[in-house]
Amino acid sequence: MLGNFTYCNPTKLYFGKDALNGLNEELPKYGKNVLLVYGGGSIKKNGIYDKVVAILKANGKNIYEDGGVMPNPTSEKLKDGVARAKAANADLILAVGGGSVCDYAKAVSVSVNCNDDAWEKYFIRFDDVACDIVPVGCVLTMVGTGSEMNGGSVITNHAQKLKVGHVFGENVFPKFSILNPEFTFTLPKYQMVSGIYDIMSHILEQYFSGNDDNTSDYLMEGLLRSLIHSADIAVNDPTDYEARSNIMWIATWALNTLVAKGKTTDWMVHMLGQSVGAHTDATHGMTLAAVSLPYYRYIMPYGVVKFARYAVNVWGVNADGKSATAVAEEGLTAMEAWMKKIGLVMNLTDLGATQDMLDGMVKSTFVKDGGYKVLNENEIRQILKASF
Amino acid sequence: MLGNFTYCNPTKLYFGKDALNGLNEELPKYGKNVLLVYGGGSIKKNGIYDKVVAILKANGKNIYEDGGVMPNPTSEKLKDGVARAKAANADLILAVGGGSVCDYAKAVSVSVNCNDDAWEKYFIRFDDVACDIVPVGCVLTMVGTGSEMNGGSVITNHAQKLKVGHVFGENVFPKFSILNPEFTFTLPKYQMVSGIYDIMSHILEQYFSGNDDNTSDYLMEGLLRSLIHSADIAVNDPTDYEARSNIMWIATWALNTLVAKGKTTDWMVHMLGQSVGAHTDATHGMTLAAVSLPYYRYIMPYGVVKFARYAVNVWGVNADGKSATAVAEEGLTAMEAWMKKIGLVMNLTDLGATQDMLDGMVKSTFVKDGGYKVLNENEIRQILKASF
Repeated sequence: MLGNFTYCNPTKLYFGKDALNGLNEELPKYGKNVLLVYGGGSIKKNGIYDKVVAILKANGKNIYEDGGVMPNPTSEKLKDGVARAKAANADLILAVGGGSVCDYAKAVSVSVNCNDDAWEKYFIRFDDVACDIVPVGCVLTMVGTGSEMNGGSVITNHAQKLKVGHVFGENVFPKFSILNPEFTFTLPKYQMVSGIYDIMSHILEQYFSGNDDNTSDYLMEGLLRSLIHSADIAVNDPTDYEARSNIMWIATWALNTLVAKGKTTDWMVHMLGQSVGAHTDATHGMTLAAVSLPYYRYIMPYGVVKFARYAVNVWGVNADGKSATAVAEEGLTAMEAWMKKIGLVMNLTDLGATQDMLDGMVKSTFVKDGGYKVLNENEIRQILKASF
Repeated sequence: MLGNFTYCNPTKLYFGKDALNGLNEELPKYGKNVLLVYGGGSIKKNGIYDKVVAILKANGKNIYEDGGVMPNPTSEKLKDGVARAKAANADLILAVGGGSVCDYAKAVSVSVNCNDDAWEKYFIRFDDVACDIVPVGCVLTMVGTGSEMNGGSVITNHAQKLKVGHVFGENVFPKFSILNPEFTFTLPKYQMVSGIYDIMSHILEQYFSGNDDNTSDYLMEGLLRSLIHSADIAVNDPTDYEARSNIMWIATWALNTLVAKGKTTDWMVHMLGQSVGAHTDATHGMTLAAVSLPYYRYIMPYGVVKFARYAVNVWGVNADGKSATAVAEEGLTAMEAWMKKIGLVMNLTDLGATQDMLDGMVKSTFVKDGGYKVLNENEIRQILKASF
């Protein structure tokens, strides 16, 4: 735990089969006007919408609707949401959905009271929040992004071919989040598996950086082992409550700032995946899956000690008598086999990407400098090419 | 992660060599009157007292002193502290010290505005807090108890031969805690090692309970492995910053409510240790060390699957071709060897206990029901006897 840091995560979590009852404890803390934010309408089919609306009404709230948030929320939609929140004079933004809906709710939250173009302000200039925010609460229906307990918000601008994340401070974190593992049961398997890899990637982005002797690395190894174990169960039985509840909990702790404390982080897989996402609109977790192994195999020689540790502590590779490189390669091979087994998309072609997108993808890939090798443009091209 | 639970931990942590600067961010949030609580005066020798007082003065605070908090704070001292806080009209209680000082500060915090005997109310009747609290902040100088980020408070009543803990809710958690690993460098080795075992015991109390398939168990295995690794370094070089910083961070996360979420817990080692403490006034961590192995060896047959998992995942025992019992025993043997190696006190005699205290210790041991075996009085006697 080197360096100075602060930690504070004030989000209150209600977890379990009865978690939605937590709304009755939280709603009285806010004013009457609630902007109800959700996605494509699956919550209307599975009954969650009706349950939430009933609780809002029982608590005497005025409900203003903002549905139709897309999987990769756009800067145009963000403008629309800000207008709706202003018109509603919203006291609370209640996001019901997955990470995209929570991300979007936070972006609206910090933009309602600022007289500026939100996309330009937060996602191009990365300005700090200088205006009053509208508090956000979440009812999670899909796991993966960790958005329910952090300040992250990713917005896509199709005209500019950019998908950009801003990490807001603790005052923008959801005030509360409702985590009921059963709400995730109806999600199609493709989405579930994509979410599982998103979680794994969040952990690996923070793990594969630095050579400090750090408690965070031990915590991440525990999270990874629990995730692999529970994912294997959930893939075979998506309604296994215990496995799905573990996955939901791991997702939250993978990206609520804890495991990054006292260490450096990478996030280059997300930069590559988000660039792919901006060009294809493919599911986030799958874009990460498709670029991960080409990236990790490329940087492994620069961080071989950590990759060998990963192989032993996460994948149970026996290191006896082997070189660190051999152990590291064995770990990545085990990871690849597991990724295929649970049904992840392993290349960009299957995500609808075509070779003519390559130049654009290379150009819209942000370069991070926390990993074992800072990539140049040629290396980015090489890795993306190998991902087809 | 079975069952319904809530999680919220609002304590803000300032961690690192410059952590004390966090006081300048926190102090302006509170009124002028600060009750400065500390222990036997070691902070006056190592300069921490002077640094804190300088920052308090620079922030225009009126300082009221409450020194002399003993290692096991008493109900009499608690009365004295409440009177001091009332006389000061304290707006903030600033605890500078280890877990005992933080525990005591919280006990004063919830008692200042209640017209009742605090010992009777919170530590005998376990009443909820119904009055306004006085906010607490901590500057930690000794690690182990986790008191810097939880609601725990342990108070001793010598007349009644009772040492009792009350776990208060999140409104009583310290508002902020300052964690500078360098502040722990001057601690005598006996205290450091005792603190390390206190941390280990906190984790094990939460680990050795239940047979759920739980992410918390994976997190605890990570914390334990990091603790063992860092303790080995710190025992040889108490000024190794990275090892001491890891230990400090592990201590906080071992007992800030996270790893207990979604599972049952035991705490029987603490019940036994606290009974020993009430009769001998021995150092807390050492009382836990002295009773742990007799207790774990006694209950192991009732939770052999978990004890075998512990042996493999924490102590690296090779399970190939062995019975679960053999693996579990090997794990406890490895644990015993490690405990001796780092210099823990392994029996009650060396803590000043005598056989004539046995009856009293048995009587003042609270029985918990979350472990693998609910102990009866004979079993408690047997375990305490085996601890001499």
